[in-house]
Amino acid sequence: MAQEITLSLADAEALSHRVLSNNGFNQAHAEAITRSVLAAQRDECHSHGLYRLIGCVQTARYRGLDPDAEPQVIDQAPSVVKVDARRGSSLLAFERGLPHLVEKASRSGMAALAINNGFHFSALWQEVEALSEQGLAGIAMTPSHAYVAPAGGRSPLFGTNPFAFSWPRPGKTPYTFDFATSVVARGEIELHQRAGKALPAGWAIDREGNPTTDPQAALDGALLPFGGYKGSALSTMIELLAGPLIGDLLGHETQAATPDGKGQPHHGELILAFSLEAFLGSDKARHQQHAETLFEAILDQGARLPSQRRFEARERSRAHGVIIPQTLYDELTALASPA
Amino acid sequence: MAQEITLSLADAEALSHRVLSNNGFNQAHAEAITRSVLAAQRDECHSHGLYRLIGCVQTARYRGLDPDAEPQVIDQAPSVVKVDARRGSSLLAFERGLPHLVEKASRSGMAALAINNGFHFSALWQEVEALSEQGLAGIAMTPSHAYVAPAGGRSPLFGTNPFAFSWPRPGKTPYTFDFATSVVARGEIELHQRAGKALPAGWAIDREGNPTTDPQAALDGALLPFGGYKGSALSTMIELLAGPLIGDLLGHETQAATPDGKGQPHHGELILAFSLEAFLGSDKARHQQHAETLFEAILDQGARLPSQRRFEARERSRAHGVIIPQTLYDELTALASPA
Repeated sequence: MAQEITLSLADAEALSHRVLSNNGFNQAHAEAITRSVLAAQRDECHSHGLYRLIGCVQTARYRGLDPDAEPQVIDQAPSVVKVDARRGSSLLAFERGLPHLVEKASRSGMAALAINNGFHFSALWQEVEALSEQGLAGIAMTPSHAYVAPAGGRSPLFGTNPFAFSWPRPGKTPYTFDFATSVVARGEIELHQRAGKALPAGWAIDREGNPTTDPQAALDGALLPFGGYKGSALSTMIELLAGPLIGDLLGHETQAATPDGKGQPHHGELILAFSLEAFLGSDKARHQQHAETLFEAILDQGARLPSQRRFEARERSRAHGVIIPQTLYDELTALASPA
Repeated sequence: MAQEITLSLADAEALSHRVLSNNGFNQAHAEAITRSVLAAQRDECHSHGLYRLIGCVQTARYRGLDPDAEPQVIDQAPSVVKVDARRGSSLLAFERGLPHLVEKASRSGMAALAINNGFHFSALWQEVEALSEQGLAGIAMTPSHAYVAPAGGRSPLFGTNPFAFSWPRPGKTPYTFDFATSVVARGEIELHQRAGKALPAGWAIDREGNPTTDPQAALDGALLPFGGYKGSALSTMIELLAGPLIGDLLGHETQAATPDGKGQPHHGELILAFSLEAFLGSDKARHQQHAETLFEAILDQGARLPSQRRFEARERSRAHGVIIPQTLYDELTALASPA
């Protein structure tokens, strides 16, 4: 068993802030990124938690993101706000755009926030839950580096293109889902490789486009979209709406930053907000109750609602703090210390 | 080989119109329904073609829809138009709402058309393509009668809940997809039953919630969502957005009309429109070209774009007319004749 360390949420927050400040991130970016990695760590989404600080610092060192970028808010149309992240983290751009998105959706019934030119590493559930916390329903989507072949295709073209949705539940944790449109995350293939295990059928194809269960052949080839041609279609929609529609890149045009300062790690993200108030007026409370009957019917069948494990983890972390590997703690502590 | 008959598009149109007029549908409804079944027949979507007229007439006879309903347009919010179909066909409601949706999306950047209380039988691709014909991107979704169990569940709760998207391609047929969020349509199960064939694994569960390949056990049980828990989540989103958000029913609250005049065949539909013009301004042409590079990359891999077969059929039908079974032609001719 690897050694672990428990941190209070306050200590984890302070550590994250020191790591970022010590590596050139300005106050506003350090706070936005810390809020995100802390929320993920609190919900035990380890892959989006404190661990991601290492990638943020590395990308900044590779000049793949600007840790001092000031996002520019553009009032594009009555129901559209754009925020140019200017090669900074998408998280600060989201925070700057959020009040405008909420205001526009509340007034118009629905609205879009388009983030451009952002470095994106976080989970989309955070952004749709920022909407459901304010009583709005939300959808978020973003393309990412190309690892996924289209259904019927042979080579990487789509990103793993996550899609997230949240619906507010009065007095309860929201109904939230957030899934990649690939069968699995690329990290799952790497875990199988490290464990020397074959992949389940249907996850990936090799470089020639043939089905493979060999992790290395899959990494050299491509992941497959979930749900066959339907998932592939959904992934195409995400490329179009969070790419060309908002004037930004397609998944296959992005590239992780490399030590020589190359790569194209910036892309777009689209967040849609729906105002229950504006759609329903005085029927709002009745139809929020109506929606509850669907959740109850799902649970009555013994099925789960998505994100329940995450909400249970949230309660645990609030009471007892977060647990991370000692090695990660040591690495972060080193990054937090002046060289 | 069953006997078939070829009809010119004009003759098919006239036949549809006679069937509807002879069965109490007013001029406006007869035209809207005829446009829809003719477009489906033209694209060789037989299950949404002329065949559907029989169901429309039957439902009207069962008092499950009002063939003389006048849709009521409600200007709900700057980016939301609602149309109450008043128990009439959703198709006339869509046509009445469309100009408002286009106007709102063009002004605001994006907008929603919510159809309430409509009898819905048509394919969603028609409605998103009505948007892409006008240069807008569109999404449409609707819940339907409950045949689908949630992932991890045991019994029908969700409709087959279709989801459609269209993106305008200058000078070309649009990029359009339209899929059910069940693994297959319920009709596929019925076809296997009639042919005495077992179902592929993963399509359905029996009444006890166990996987089944027996068509009758599947019909007594439930279909499964496509793509496991991800498809199930998407289907839940469709229930919420095209149900409670627009003040309308969930899939499990709807029921087909029955001969005794019972049933609840009316429900909601949500159509979203995105204005490329408003999102992109003077960059519109450049980013429409940019989107084309994605379609080209898909085709270059040997993968297909969705709807290509449909567009090929469209060309054939325009040149040579449509082909339907003689038995269907005879049945429609009988419905078109005064009793």
